[in-house]
Amino acid sequence: MRIGELSRRTGVPVPTIKYYLREGLVPHGERTSPNQARYDDSHVHRVRLVRALTEVGGLSIAAARDVITLMHEPGRDRLTSIGKVHFAVQAARQPPAAGEPSETSVARAEDLIERRGWHVRPTNPARKALAGVLDYFTRLGQPNVLGLLDDYADAAERLAAAEIDTLDGPDVDHMAEHVVMMTVLGGALLDALRGLAQESTASTKMS
Amino acid sequence: MRIGELSRRTGVPVPTIKYYLREGLVPHGERTSPNQARYDDSHVHRVRLVRALTEVGGLSIAAARDVITLMHEPGRDRLTSIGKVHFAVQAARQPPAAGEPSETSVARAEDLIERRGWHVRPTNPARKALAGVLDYFTRLGQPNVLGLLDDYADAAERLAAAEIDTLDGPDVDHMAEHVVMMTVLGGALLDALRGLAQESTASTKMS
Repeated sequence: MRIGELSRRTGVPVPTIKYYLREGLVPHGERTSPNQARYDDSHVHRVRLVRALTEVGGLSIAAARDVITLMHEPGRDRLTSIGKVHFAVQAARQPPAAGEPSETSVARAEDLIERRGWHVRPTNPARKALAGVLDYFTRLGQPNVLGLLDDYADAAERLAAAEIDTLDGPDVDHMAEHVVMMTVLGGALLDALRGLAQESTASTKMS
Repeated sequence: MRIGELSRRTGVPVPTIKYYLREGLVPHGERTSPNQARYDDSHVHRVRLVRALTEVGGLSIAAARDVITLMHEPGRDRLTSIGKVHFAVQAARQPPAAGEPSETSVARAEDLIERRGWHVRPTNPARKALAGVLDYFTRLGQPNVLGLLDDYADAAERLAAAEIDTLDGPDVDHMAEHVVMMTVLGGALLDALRGLAQESTASTKMS
């Protein structure tokens, strides 16, 4: 297909697709003339993936490119490759200018991880992310929510068990993409479902 | 305190605080001379709130201002005011240029809401958000994750029950802020905890 058809099928404007091509987020099509190239379903898929990362996941163009590159890097072994991608997409979603979290929140995060019996490497970016969020809760004086920490951890644990069970693909590339989508789209899915369940619960209880 | 002290206590640079003042996100301090103003703890709190909305929640400056304004608008009754803020912060977090979701995904979202017995107004922005995410999952060919829809809904439901239980403040302003923080920081908290639980589950199962 031509670039116009690629645009129509993905709903992404032609100039945006050209920008993705220039920035190396989408591979170039097969050149059929000096001014034209042919694209196929793999390009459709890639454009949608870029949109999911940038629009839903809030990743910058540079961060999306890094994650996509890592997704297609041949890895020594499966778990290492998948783990790298998992860490990269999490790191990419964190606020750019986030300072160091306070010692209190770091300790609280460590304590939670130990209490739950979670095996988590020191390099998992979610450690710092957790401590950072705890800082916000504490500084904004929302201690009620800290009391819910184990409810949130329960939810995360149950979901992880279900999510990892579905993590089975024909190859590492496929699994890497699955992990990225689980992180980015799974988070958005939960946000939406929480917004619905919260209204439903509140209207039942408070009216 | 002077603006320098406000900056030190919040970790936000002076020029950024001045920008927030100009944009109406933070109320002006009490003027003590033509070039100086005095700030208090309420300003510290407000700057942190703005950071939570923009840095953690990813809200634009304009969206953050709208949400904060709504948080302090006197409402006719408690549930209506809180509901308005809840909808506004959710709408503000959605991708700006998101098109209309497909009929299939809208139907799938409606079906889920009905199946769960959730009471949700047609205007809840999470309806569209849910259908939009389902579109991404479908188009990216991640059908496995759709099979987890009820696991995600279970998690959202349990959390909503716990969250709404803690929703009790001295006044509507306080509750409105609680709702906003529950949405924005609660989402970030879950993301971080999921990232930790996923690694722990995966390393146990796959190694």
